[in-house]
This record gives sequence, structure tokens and C-alpha cells, in this order.
Amino acid sequence: MSSIARHRRWLKGLEANQLDGFLVSHSPNLSYLFHFSGSAGLGCYVSGQSYLIVDSRYIEQANAETSNCHILLAEKSLEDTLKTLLEKLSSRKHLRIGVESAHISWEQIRRLQSWTTQINWIPTSHLIEKLRMIKDAEELKLLEEAVRIAQQAYQLMKGEVRAGMKEIDVAGILELEFRQAGGQGLAFDTIVASGSRSSLPHASTTYRTIREDEFLLVDFGIKYQGYCSDLTRIHSMPKSVAPSIFAIVQEAQREAIAHIRPGVCSTKIDAAARQIISRYGYGDYFKHSTGHGLGLEVHELPSLSAHKPQEIQEGLTITVEPGIYLPGKYGVRIEDVVTVTKTGCRILSNQSI
Amino acid sequence: MSSIARHRRWLKGLEANQLDGFLVSHSPNLSYLFHFSGSAGLGCYVSGQSYLIVDSRYIEQANAETSNCHILLAEKSLEDTLKTLLEKLSSRKHLRIGVESAHISWEQIRRLQSWTTQINWIPTSHLIEKLRMIKDAEELKLLEEAVRIAQQAYQLMKGEVRAGMKEIDVAGILELEFRQAGGQGLAFDTIVASGSRSSLPHASTTYRTIREDEFLLVDFGIKYQGYCSDLTRIHSMPKSVAPSIFAIVQEAQREAIAHIRPGVCSTKIDAAARQIISRYGYGDYFKHSTGHGLGLEVHELPSLSAHKPQEIQEGLTITVEPGIYLPGKYGVRIEDVVTVTKTGCRILSNQSI
Repeated sequence: MSSIARHRRWLKGLEANQLDGFLVSHSPNLSYLFHFSGSAGLGCYVSGQSYLIVDSRYIEQANAETSNCHILLAEKSLEDTLKTLLEKLSSRKHLRIGVESAHISWEQIRRLQSWTTQINWIPTSHLIEKLRMIKDAEELKLLEEAVRIAQQAYQLMKGEVRAGMKEIDVAGILELEFRQAGGQGLAFDTIVASGSRSSLPHASTTYRTIREDEFLLVDFGIKYQGYCSDLTRIHSMPKSVAPSIFAIVQEAQREAIAHIRPGVCSTKIDAAARQIISRYGYGDYFKHSTGHGLGLEVHELPSLSAHKPQEIQEGLTITVEPGIYLPGKYGVRIEDVVTVTKTGCRILSNQSI
Repeated sequence: MSSIARHRRWLKGLEANQLDGFLVSHSPNLSYLFHFSGSAGLGCYVSGQSYLIVDSRYIEQANAETSNCHILLAEKSLEDTLKTLLEKLSSRKHLRIGVESAHISWEQIRRLQSWTTQINWIPTSHLIEKLRMIKDAEELKLLEEAVRIAQQAYQLMKGEVRAGMKEIDVAGILELEFRQAGGQGLAFDTIVASGSRSSLPHASTTYRTIREDEFLLVDFGIKYQGYCSDLTRIHSMPKSVAPSIFAIVQEAQREAIAHIRPGVCSTKIDAAARQIISRYGYGDYFKHSTGHGLGLEVHELPSLSAHKPQEIQEGLTITVEPGIYLPGKYGVRIEDVVTVTKTGCRILSNQSI
């Protein structure tokens, strides 16, 4: 979808919310609407025009990347330039300007509200994130490439991992392969968790030495043209206890994926994975959600959790990642990426590696 | 400083602000006060007790890392557990509980304010960040190690870079060396900017092939036990125009560093660098600030900028990074890290590499 089409959908959302304008401060949303990849900026739609305000660090980049709005250089601060702009344009009083209330800080909105311009700042929730949920063909291509690069790197890494290496050595090898495969950066801090550390769902990567015949869990993802991948693999596990646990998690994942299709409620997919794990008596050891949306951010809408019902729609791209974590012992998580099709879903990652 | 001493300083700050309690939501602040390194959690001080609320992903980790507070597992959501806790504890009405207004979102504070518990949420600004500015001996050691690791990796990378490589190849080599030198993760996305791309102060790393006799700017940093390093080096530059520009930036950095000592206003340090660059006629091409604090976050207080006067104090750790950026041509930035001593400052990085 062109940025013009995205803009049009965005503006429709403003109309539906009876907003005269909108302020965008969340970077991934700036990237989505304006193709601007800098880490700081303010987007604003007001009086029928779109503006992107950036500071001097990003002015050259904004001019190169962005073509669907007026670009303004902030001399003093982004907010100061916004204020000047709004004072000039808001001749009519009490403009209703939406803000991203999940992202704008209380401090910032208090500053904006203290301005003498009589703007009525309206909290809105995930207005652009909801547009971003449904990926178009171009976005899907980038996501597939992000998954492909991460997988290719992981496969190359697999051949190089040996007992005696440290967790950080493994992360280093994987990250070099990421780059060589074409990754433009990490989607998140790589997790290499060995032995009992695999029972920490969000482990960090440490200096621990990896031993023969123990668990090695790797959770990894890269960015490609702004889009993220996110995969988890069990590189190795002890021959004794583990295969049965692994098979349960695999079955849970398979069951969850089988439930994914347009019209289904997200909680059903979560429940499908959870039921399998509970049936084997491990229900208390799978406490995170079953998955999440993936796109310009590594965690996006929707959440596949028990508490946040949301209708599954064609075009969503989501992770499916059940796990079983036995504190102090070990943990197993298997994470793949799927995209929702007209009748079901298509798995973007290669489950056999 | 022990976490008990940090806690004590924090509680003194609450007293000074006439607060009955405080809610901590910013992860680096949770790390500072509770030694908890997870990415999500809520810290709360109320009725003379400290609490850390985490979800199931982090409960094992919190129990391992944290010893100076009660740890609560959030069954449904962090906020839900906080609400239950406060309902139980706030028998006295109208408790004044401080929040980090620069970090808490408008959406979240609106939810908190809608609770029936009669809590008076008080906005506070950077209360914990101001404590974090002054590094103790232990923190300084970790920062020095983060700088040492990044430098060692950079030196090893230098020997491997060749014309014909892509920017991402260079980043890959550097990041592998980071890991092998002991880096626990990236402090920020590594910047490798070649040729005219060096003129983008916050360039991303691309597939561009690096040619003989052109600019190669590398901005890099790692995390070591939570603490960040941040350095910029010009790996190579054309023999023709560049040396004079490089020498100007070097002189600006030297001049800025010469001004760093307790009692000086931060704007003076910024002005010192800016004056040198302006004297040579490049004032319009150095638009970002001269430096920033460095610690658990890669950008912390204080800022060495023209607009944010702050008194320099012993124990600050800051970057000094003037630059000259000629759009479409090239850019030079030199970034080192210093710590403020009783009488001046000590440079933590090795300027000769």
C-alpha cells in the first residue's frame, strides 16, 4: 500500500473520531505513515495538511525518505515548532486534535495542555496500530524476508555451536550471520539461554558455559527495512527427560495454528495451546500469552492471550509461541510466525530447522 | 552504593516532595532501585514498604535478582495487582503517590486516576534520573568495563575492514568482537556510515559498499551488566579534504573536555566546543548537542546542550561528541566518555584508537 493509501485510511479514522487533526509521536507510526525511519519526530495533520517535524539530526534523512508531507526543521525543540505551527493554523478555536495516549507521556500532554492555543487534545488509543495490524503485500514481503534472513543465519550458526562455548559466544556467531545474511539490525536482544536458564521466559544472554547434553534455547530476530522477525528454537536438549516436553509444546503450537483463521476470536487460539499443555499437567508452567502481532515493532497488536479478545482478520501477521517452563530445571518454547489468509493461515517460518 | 543506600536516597526525595508513596514504571529506574533487569514491572513504595510487581515471565528472575523489596506476582496484569495492593494499604484517604510523569503514558495515568481508591497521583520529573546522574564507584567500574570492551572490539575490527565490504559486514564483524570481548548486548543500533552517508548524524547501517579513500564513521556501544558505552570513531577518511575538518572536531572536543569540572554550567561546555567549530566557519554544520550522560541508559541526564543549563557535579559520566556534517558530502564526529572528578575530569576511553 502506498503511503498515500495509508494516509487516506488514517484520515478516515480521524473523521470517524470527529477529530480536526492528529499528533503522531510514536516512531513506528511515523515510519508507517511518513516512511520516516528516524527515532524522534512529530507528525501532525491539521487544516487539511500533513507535517513532519524533525530536529537537525534527522533533517537530511527526512528529506530523503519522506515525500507525502511538509517537513519542518525544529530549531529549538520539536514541541516548540509544533506550537508555532498550531498557533498559525488554528484560527478557529477549540480544534479537536487527537493524540496517541498510549505513547504520549503525562508530562508531555500536560505541557501541551498548558499552551495558550485553545486546542482540545483528545486521547485516542492505538488508532494507527489498528491500521498497522493488517499487513499489505509489500509489508508481507518484508516480513518474509526478515524471517528468511533470521532463519538462514540460525542454520549457519547451528553448525558452529559446541559445548564449551559461552552463551554470549553463540549470540555473537548468530549476530554475525544475521549481518552477513542481510539483517539491518536486531529486532530485540538475542536470547541464548542454556541449562536451567532456559526456564526464564525472558532470559538475558550471559557468560555461562554451555555443557554437553543440556538445554539450549535461542530466541532471535532481526530487522529488515524496518520489519521484525521473531523466532525461538530449542537448539539442543538432554536425551533423557526432554523429548516428551518438547513434543507437548509442539502439539500445543500445532493446535493453536490449526485454530487461526479470519473470524475466530484471539482467545480461542490461546486456549487451544493452553488446553493441550494443561491436559499433560503443565498448565501452571505456561503463563505467558500464546503470541503477538509482528511488524514494524516486535510486539504489536493483536495479542493472543486469554484476556484480550480480538477478532482474527486476514492480513494479520502473528507469532505462535507456547512454552513450558519448569523453574530451576529447564524451559521449552517454540516460536513461529504465521500470516492469516482468507481461509486459515500460512506459516512464514520453516518449522523443520 | 548498595541498593539499600540507593533506596534511602530515593525515600529522602519522596519526603522532600511531600509524597506518601511512589510508583516506578521506567525499567532503568527499576534496575537502579531494585536490581531488577526485566523489561517490564512496577515498583511501588507505600506505607513504609517497597514492592516490585512482575508478571509470570519475570517472577523467577525477580526472585533471583532482587532482595530489597516484597515481590508480587501479577496474575492478571501489573496494574490490577497494584490496585489490589493500594486498596489494601491506603486506609488513609488521599495518599499522595508520585509517578514518573516523563515515562507514564497519558493513557495509563488516566486509568489509574479512574480507580475508586482515592489516591492523589502526583507528577514528578526525573526524580530517580537525578539520583542516577551521579555514579558511585561500582557503577563507574561497570561503565569503564563497558567502554573497554567496546574499544577492544573496535580495535580488532579495524584490522579486518577492507574496501569492498558493505556497511553491514563491518557492523557484523564489530558485533561479533563485542560478544567475544564480553559485551552482553548492544547499547544501541551500531552505526556504520560510509561516504556521504557519514553526514547523517543518526545514520542507519545499510548495504552500501565501502570504497577506497572515503569516509567511514562508526558509532558503537555495548551493555555490560546493564551499563552502556557509546563511542564514535572515524575509521578512515579521504586523504584530500578531510584532515583539516577532523582536526577542527578534535580541537573542539579537547576544548570542551578542558572545561569540564564541578561547578561549571553544562552550557559552557557545549559553548566551548561550538565556539571552536564556529571560529573555523562550520558553526551551521554542528547542530546537535555536545554530549549526554551515560549509565543504565545510553542517553541520560545531563545534556550538554545550549538550552538545558545544569551544574556539572563530581561523579557524572558523560559523552563529549562534537561533529561537523556537510550534507551530501561527509561528516566527522568524535565521541569519547569522561567522568567528572573533584577537580576536572578523567577520560575513560582511549582517544588514540
